[in-house]
Amino acid sequence: MLYDLIVIGGGPAGISAGIYAARQKLNILLITKTFGGQLTRKAVAIENYPGFKEISGEELIRKFTQHLKKFNLEIKNDLVVQIKKRGQEFSVFTKKKKQFKSKTVIVASGADPRPLEVPGEKKFIGRGISYCSICDGPLFSDETVAVVGGGNAGFEAVIFLANYVKKIYILEYSSKPGADQTNQEKVKKTKKAEIITNAVLKRIKGKNFVNSIIYQDKKTKKLNTLKVKGVFVEIGSQPATSFVKGLVDFNERDEIKVEFETYQTKTPGLFAVGDVNVGQYKQIITASGEGAKAALAAYNYLTHW
Amino acid sequence: MLYDLIVIGGGPAGISAGIYAARQKLNILLITKTFGGQLTRKAVAIENYPGFKEISGEELIRKFTQHLKKFNLEIKNDLVVQIKKRGQEFSVFTKKKKQFKSKTVIVASGADPRPLEVPGEKKFIGRGISYCSICDGPLFSDETVAVVGGGNAGFEAVIFLANYVKKIYILEYSSKPGADQTNQEKVKKTKKAEIITNAVLKRIKGKNFVNSIIYQDKKTKKLNTLKVKGVFVEIGSQPATSFVKGLVDFNERDEIKVEFETYQTKTPGLFAVGDVNVGQYKQIITASGEGAKAALAAYNYLTHW
Repeated sequence: MLYDLIVIGGGPAGISAGIYAARQKLNILLITKTFGGQLTRKAVAIENYPGFKEISGEELIRKFTQHLKKFNLEIKNDLVVQIKKRGQEFSVFTKKKKQFKSKTVIVASGADPRPLEVPGEKKFIGRGISYCSICDGPLFSDETVAVVGGGNAGFEAVIFLANYVKKIYILEYSSKPGADQTNQEKVKKTKKAEIITNAVLKRIKGKNFVNSIIYQDKKTKKLNTLKVKGVFVEIGSQPATSFVKGLVDFNERDEIKVEFETYQTKTPGLFAVGDVNVGQYKQIITASGEGAKAALAAYNYLTHW
Repeated sequence: MLYDLIVIGGGPAGISAGIYAARQKLNILLITKTFGGQLTRKAVAIENYPGFKEISGEELIRKFTQHLKKFNLEIKNDLVVQIKKRGQEFSVFTKKKKQFKSKTVIVASGADPRPLEVPGEKKFIGRGISYCSICDGPLFSDETVAVVGGGNAGFEAVIFLANYVKKIYILEYSSKPGADQTNQEKVKKTKKAEIITNAVLKRIKGKNFVNSIIYQDKKTKKLNTLKVKGVFVEIGSQPATSFVKGLVDFNERDEIKVEFETYQTKTPGLFAVGDVNVGQYKQIITASGEGAKAALAAYNYLTHW
């Protein structure tokens, strides 16, 4: 069995690719552990997927998967561990020891925000812990929050959050923030941010929702408590791209390099969309748009196969 | 009054840009004659905007505009006739003789398919006349249809339509189709297409829906009738981009050249998304994704203004 297309991933990018490819009558296999991608972590409402003023992550996943399953395509609940290409054919190997062959592959396996790995983090995901300030910032109107990570991502989160929240603690592990001067000046201008350097986050506390965090001062070794309702984690992300090594080029964050119109990687017939690629904008709507484009580009590629 | 951002256009690309920019708390003016863009012409259901299995164009526009109007942004019903840039500031001039100033501009004014301009065309738009085979093809299952235009776009429409329809007439004005060999071979393989060259479409006929077309043979001057339920118009499109001359580069189809990650044109602070740009994939979901990206890129640009 040689598929026209294997889609890897069941988040918005993979589902959109599946919908578009299925409408092109391609012979498709979609492989994913679960559906929803990062949406599954969103206990707060989504307000920025055009067409839905406000919708829960769970409900949007339900709508996406129902939409996908309307079409004729095969779905396997499995995890891809490696892809190889020989001649024009791709071989996709999975954790369940299966091997599938196809003419094209769309990688839409997403990225996981790098976790803090401190006690309390998992418990409060969606209950005060957020990995996306643009998504969740507006929910913390007039509250005090912490941003963990003093690089550009952290500072940009602060600039955005300052539109909504009352006060923001920035926790930076090293002795000074790595964010560029412009971002530092802008954060200063908000008059809402307090930068705490040499801070090692130790624990997140709360009942149903976060109510405080405890950090240690690296120099004094003293433990301090901050009362916050939200914790924004901005210490980088981990794209799920290890299985595609050898076929693509990565940037320094293990994101896959693509051509931004078709989302093709350096390997013809191999595409990468959504959070796995080097694109700087990682939203539900942008991932969905990229999935559609890659599916149409794969269709195009197949017409010359 | 100096806006942070002026969005030109009220289709999916412009609305998505508006939603994203508004969430960034930018001071925004959106200028459009009407809302919906090319969606307004879709009397048939939309099945490829992820999240909605099947929705009418009218209903999707309603949801998009309701979503947009939830946010705090100014809307003017007007038509942009020119944009100028002096220093860092844009001036946007409208048909109603107004002038608006802003720091950034997102052009999302869409494109109109080049019309046939024959009697009956306007009457049957959405009732057999379609300008998008990918969108509407599946609706003509087991019917006989015509594709007007024998270039690559027309032939690609035929390849796609052959998955659904019984028979396809291709009407080509010149003595031979301009489509490339691969596409011609593929069309031949479908065994469903009949190519009629030297064909000048004269009239589209029907009652509530299209039932036939009349064309003239350029050589014999004879008029011929073809019984068809659908007519797919593939003779090119006309992007609404004349007002931005001097600030951007165009391709040969008057589409605006952009950098495909941020959708910025050659003029810093000026972005172009959706059907106005040179992107080859022009779908509701791709336009929406581009609108979001340009809004985030404009926000980025403004942080360094």
